[in-house]
Amino acid sequence: MSHTQALCRFLAALDYEQLPDHVLARTEDLFLDWLASALASQGAHPIPLFERYARKMGPATGPAQIIVNGASSSAYFAALVNAASSHLVEQDDLHNSSVLHAATVVFPAVFAAAQDLGKSGRELLLASVAGYEAGIRIGEFMGRSHYRIFHTTATVGTLAAAVAVGKLLDFNEEQFINLLGSAGTQAAGLWEFLRDAADSKQLHTAKAAADGLLAAYLTADGLTGARNILEGDQGLAAGMSTDADPSKLSDRLGSRWALLETSFKFHASCRHTHPAADALLGLMQREGLSHEQIAHVETRVHQGAIDVLGRVSVPQSVHQAKFSMGTVLGLIAVHGKAGLTEFQAFALNDSNVSAFRDKVGMTLDREVDGAYPQRWLGRVVLTTVDGRVLHGAIDEPKGDPGNTLSREELADKFQRLTRFSGARTPAQSGELIQKVWDLRNAVSLDHWL
Amino acid sequence: MSHTQALCRFLAALDYEQLPDHVLARTEDLFLDWLASALASQGAHPIPLFERYARKMGPATGPAQIIVNGASSSAYFAALVNAASSHLVEQDDLHNSSVLHAATVVFPAVFAAAQDLGKSGRELLLASVAGYEAGIRIGEFMGRSHYRIFHTTATVGTLAAAVAVGKLLDFNEEQFINLLGSAGTQAAGLWEFLRDAADSKQLHTAKAAADGLLAAYLTADGLTGARNILEGDQGLAAGMSTDADPSKLSDRLGSRWALLETSFKFHASCRHTHPAADALLGLMQREGLSHEQIAHVETRVHQGAIDVLGRVSVPQSVHQAKFSMGTVLGLIAVHGKAGLTEFQAFALNDSNVSAFRDKVGMTLDREVDGAYPQRWLGRVVLTTVDGRVLHGAIDEPKGDPGNTLSREELADKFQRLTRFSGARTPAQSGELIQKVWDLRNAVSLDHWL
Repeated sequence: MSHTQALCRFLAALDYEQLPDHVLARTEDLFLDWLASALASQGAHPIPLFERYARKMGPATGPAQIIVNGASSSAYFAALVNAASSHLVEQDDLHNSSVLHAATVVFPAVFAAAQDLGKSGRELLLASVAGYEAGIRIGEFMGRSHYRIFHTTATVGTLAAAVAVGKLLDFNEEQFINLLGSAGTQAAGLWEFLRDAADSKQLHTAKAAADGLLAAYLTADGLTGARNILEGDQGLAAGMSTDADPSKLSDRLGSRWALLETSFKFHASCRHTHPAADALLGLMQREGLSHEQIAHVETRVHQGAIDVLGRVSVPQSVHQAKFSMGTVLGLIAVHGKAGLTEFQAFALNDSNVSAFRDKVGMTLDREVDGAYPQRWLGRVVLTTVDGRVLHGAIDEPKGDPGNTLSREELADKFQRLTRFSGARTPAQSGELIQKVWDLRNAVSLDHWL
Repeated sequence: MSHTQALCRFLAALDYEQLPDHVLARTEDLFLDWLASALASQGAHPIPLFERYARKMGPATGPAQIIVNGASSSAYFAALVNAASSHLVEQDDLHNSSVLHAATVVFPAVFAAAQDLGKSGRELLLASVAGYEAGIRIGEFMGRSHYRIFHTTATVGTLAAAVAVGKLLDFNEEQFINLLGSAGTQAAGLWEFLRDAADSKQLHTAKAAADGLLAAYLTADGLTGARNILEGDQGLAAGMSTDADPSKLSDRLGSRWALLETSFKFHASCRHTHPAADALLGLMQREGLSHEQIAHVETRVHQGAIDVLGRVSVPQSVHQAKFSMGTVLGLIAVHGKAGLTEFQAFALNDSNVSAFRDKVGMTLDREVDGAYPQRWLGRVVLTTVDGRVLHGAIDEPKGDPGNTLSREELADKFQRLTRFSGARTPAQSGELIQKVWDLRNAVSLDHWL
């Protein structure tokens, strides 16, 4: 039995009763965190473009809700818009070793399909777990070489979204095999956009969720796909990876819940900046330093951070600033945090932050790089204006599984994000939070939002 | 100025008045040939799956026509279904040196958008030329290494479709640059499906046309894309090619009309089988041989033919049989042709054809491979049952620019294809043919079909 077959067999057999309570609870947390990210982007470019496209090309109304505007559409367009919107503010979850932002591709697809198909909260949760478990393993399988050029959340995200919807449709092993074929052959998304501050990151997640959903609906109707799209000679790894490891596909299926390893984002920036941000913050607090006392910060990072962040020197947009190590550390040093509010107010127009940005360097560090992507270590070497050299280090950035956000912190993050965009009042947000934490008991998701 | 910029500048400036009459006439021919391919697939799996998906996810009616069923939808879904359907019977055109089937991705997108936007026949033709000229050059740019794993019509097809719709939307240079970014980052499509006789080839063209159209509409509304998606360090060539040649992107812009180099398909099979099929047919006619007199045929081919056709031994479906060199040559040897009717009747169930299939081999030939992809040479070495060794050779397969189909032959092909599916009566087809040859004078394309 191939690793792909083993994965598909597992997905087909996966049952709600198998899911431990803490896995269910964490899935609800992840759903909550995803919803906050989507709501936080309301009205922000380029989300209205996707909303208008859905209105133009889709039906006037439909069974699936569009989060940012309260409208409805077919499942396809709801998935498209909701996936674009939930990745914009860079606050959605990330799984470390796969470098996959699972929430922003899995939940938009599975939520839209669940509303379309009249499924329950339980069914939504089970399908979401399937999407996470498959997506994370496929991301790990594709390896570091893939992520160097391809945006894994876009490429692998298509498969993760497809699997989630396939589970909702109660696929058997054979259908999952075909599904992976049809989803995998649509997998796309290149990092090239980042240096230009272009809008592709939202296009990537929009398309991954929508394409995955399309693959699942067509598979349910009988479309066949390549049986070996992951491991085959003319498949995904053959075309887009040089270090693929098939054993990752079936790694501890049923005993390892990879979903639990997902990190919540605390700072509103690219996850590659978080380890250094936390290391700097800890060091400044420990030493009682202000930003004026700092002459230089050298961040010691893994290669992936350089590949992604190395493209941005002087950021041209708030979104691009989230991929600027210097800006993130500047916000931390000058304002003590790098949340949505700080980014909006200070990332581009604060001279202290800009000045600090130019004091930050990135150097490849053998230890940090060796631990990556399983562990995202934070190491900074700080030089003070009076010539002292200080070292800061953290081993688990805030939000990592071993340093995770409590439900209180998640609720606080939800409130901050919805307040940022004005999408919900605090009272409305409070109600929505409770509703998500009771998701497993929702009999219907019809007009659920 | 980069090659990408030069291409975008050319596309923005391209004017109807610049198009020589023979380019316009050939574009109408290509449109006719495309329409025949779409109509020929009516009712055949997996096209109804795409029709049902469009009905489920799209509006009940819309400005754009779905060719195979006479229904209408939004431009997005019409492009999706029409592109799936026009690639199924393997009779749509091919450009040799780019290995791009341009018609099946360019025309569905541009026709749907033209109907949506209220454009004229002239505007459709101009936009189609833009799509061909860009798509062919981008295909050549991506090189042979790309085609080894990726289905160029799917990947590059996304950009070709996008450019055509962008031209219809009257994009300027800057918009074309952004458009290539948004289209290129969606480019996907792997050959892996072929060995399993899976349905992905139709999914590929459907998605290429629809994704290209999506990129163009979003770009018109202000979505930005990577400025260097083709040549950049984290772009299309970096991720999916090892022999990309940027100079191809701007090759003789305005003086070379690459569209004129497009081949029409005579046989209803993968184009890689055509050179050998024509060489065998010529040799059998010259020597007066029947299939019973032939002991073995060794086809001497380019590597691309082995990469694509080498996956199929005993075909499991009529569609897969079109990628079986032995089956195609069997149809030629036993029935004298390999058209849609012969494939349907004899490709899987004729013992003479199956027996002949097992007598056919493929060998890489240095001369043939060296000429490819600019020229697709046909070379066969035939051994008779009485021990003679005979050589067959053709330098331009039927349908190639130097051995093209006349308007009479194109009309005959149109009649054969529409008769095959029963989509149109001979009289209706006759009218449609005349209508296409007058496309440049169509003031409106509203309900044009």
